[in-house]
This record gives sequence, C-alpha cells and structure tokens, in this order.
Amino acid sequence: MSLALRQHIEKMIALTDAEFDVVLSKFSVKKLKKHQFLVQEGSTVLHDYWVVKGLLKAYHTDEDGKVHILQFAMEDWWISDYQSLVYHIPASINIDCIEDSELLVISAEDRELLCNEMKGMANFFRKKSHAGYVALQQRILFLLNKNPQERYNRFLKLNPKLLQRLPKTLLAAYIGVSRETLSRLSHP
Amino acid sequence: MSLALRQHIEKMIALTDAEFDVVLSKFSVKKLKKHQFLVQEGSTVLHDYWVVKGLLKAYHTDEDGKVHILQFAMEDWWISDYQSLVYHIPASINIDCIEDSELLVISAEDRELLCNEMKGMANFFRKKSHAGYVALQQRILFLLNKNPQERYNRFLKLNPKLLQRLPKTLLAAYIGVSRETLSRLSHP
Repeated sequence: MSLALRQHIEKMIALTDAEFDVVLSKFSVKKLKKHQFLVQEGSTVLHDYWVVKGLLKAYHTDEDGKVHILQFAMEDWWISDYQSLVYHIPASINIDCIEDSELLVISAEDRELLCNEMKGMANFFRKKSHAGYVALQQRILFLLNKNPQERYNRFLKLNPKLLQRLPKTLLAAYIGVSRETLSRLSHP
Repeated sequence: MSLALRQHIEKMIALTDAEFDVVLSKFSVKKLKKHQFLVQEGSTVLHDYWVVKGLLKAYHTDEDGKVHILQFAMEDWWISDYQSLVYHIPASINIDCIEDSELLVISAEDRELLCNEMKGMANFFRKKSHAGYVALQQRILFLLNKNPQERYNRFLKLNPKLLQRLPKTLLAAYIGVSRETLSRLSHP
C-alpha cells in the first residue's frame, strides 16, 4: 500500500526514502464496505482521500430526490468534498462506496504542513490539482453537450475500465440520461 | 499593475521584495480589444493569463453552432485552456474579450520554473488551483440542477458584480436557458 502511494507520488516528483517516510507518516488507512458513507452532506470535511482499492461516488441529491453524480473515484484517484475542505463549510455532497474500498487518509492540516515543509509535495499537490481542474473542465463540456450518444462515447473513451465496474443506473445518472435512454445508446 | 499582482499573490503567501521581483520578471503585459481572441480552438496554448482589467469568456461551440460557456474571467481571475497547457494538446475552447482587457501573461515553462525555485509560489499556484477546482465543482452541481430559476438565483448570489457587466445573451448561455426563458426569471 505504501509502495503504491510512493509510485503514485513519484509519477510527478522525486522523493528520498527519508522524505517519503515523513509523507507516509501523515497518512492512515480507512476501510469501508460497499454502501458505507465516506462523506455525508452537512458534515464538515477535514480529510482528503486516496483510493488504494475500490470504487466510490460523489453525488448530490436534489429536492426531488434525483441523484446527480459529481465524480467517481477508483484506484489511484483522490476524492473528498474540496469545497468543505478548503473553505471549512458543511459538505454539499455525499460520498459513498460502490464497492468495498480501502483508502489512504490525510488531514487538510497535515497536507498543508507537508506542502510548507517540502517544495516537492507542494508541487505534487499543485500538479494533481491542475489535473483535477482539467478533468472537471472536460466534465463541464461533457455536460453542456446535449447529445446522449456523444456523451456516452466520450465516457467510454475516457473511462473504459470504469465502465465495466459501474452499475448501469449510476452510469445513466453520470451521463445525465434515463436508464431507458442509456440502453438504447450503442457502442461506437 | 505590479502592485495589484503582488496584492493578489500575498492574499495567499508572503513574498520578500526580492522574491516578488523574480516573480514579476516572468510576466509580460497583453492588451486586447473587445471581441479579440486570446485563445483559439485548435491552437497550442503556452501561457496562463491573469486579468488586470476587463472581462473575457471561455467557450466551446458545438456542431450545431451553439455556444456553451465554460467560464467568465474578470479582474483578479486567471484564465487559459488548462487542458492544452497541462497536456500539450490543441485547445478545445475559445477565449475572447467581452470588454477591452489588460492581462498579465506567464508561460507554463516560467510558472514551473518559479514553482521549482520558490516553495511559496508552488503553494500559491496550488491554492489557486484548489480554489479553481472547487469553483468548477460548484459549476457542475449548478449545471446538474435543472431548475432555471435556482440556477439564476445562484449565479446572482455568487457573481453580483459580474451580472451587471454581462450581456443577457451570454448570461443565458452560461445558465443554459434560452434568452426568452431568462427574461421570465425573476430576481429573488
């Protein structure tokens, strides 16, 4: 698990053994079962989470009870309610497990500490955040595109592995079409 | 102009005079007239832009010629095609000026250089990126909410100053409703 984290970080920056030991000391392990919540709307979020194993979804339920999926997260992805984390306000989303999941957990406080002590870690989190920003921009362009077939094709292209693990109902909610419409969409 | 940039950066991190001189030396000034393009779809984007004065929009035009607005940027905001900047691929969006605009420009290369030399700047861009990520998450939740009145109210609440400067057609394109629907939405 610690090796996976080191490999993940070293895709972006180099760390000495001693530096990685400091980084690793700030993380703890969290295990959750399928359907368990990681974040509940209204709670204050103090941690960021890196997925070692499993699959989760971040979503918002509107007043009519309709589920809107903000993002999925599987192995090697980060997930949290970043609005709550950054601005210290109650979470506006829920995060729960689609599969049994194992996470590495770091507090926002410890992350700041690492970034203030180690330029490498500041740059690691900066680059991860940039990549996340780009992914969200793509998600927005995806949502603005009203053609369900194109949305489906794009999802398939970007997330072939994820597709196989997702219940069709959740895929439909992410793409923003009904379950019935989804079943009519064809593989490109 | 340099004072404004310093104040902008020092909202997040502290800089000595000497450090700020290094930072400032990496920026140049760019002035654009209303309707001029900053980024054109298909081009490779090499710079990030900070708005000193003016108003711009980033958007994508779909196959039917419909304009989808990704973001606006006014004084104190950053704008670029970050997908193109980070992954060195052609821009998937256009950025042009809604008003005459003055920008401070830094190349991606110089930004990396600053971040590798100065931990403070790595943390500045990390924090800006986090804030941008959060804003995009909110934009996604906004788009997933299908109620036009709620979308309008939310925009009004988050961007009261921007609202006064935006042509109604662009506001409608951002909210994702027709110009006719927009005129029926009431102030809360």
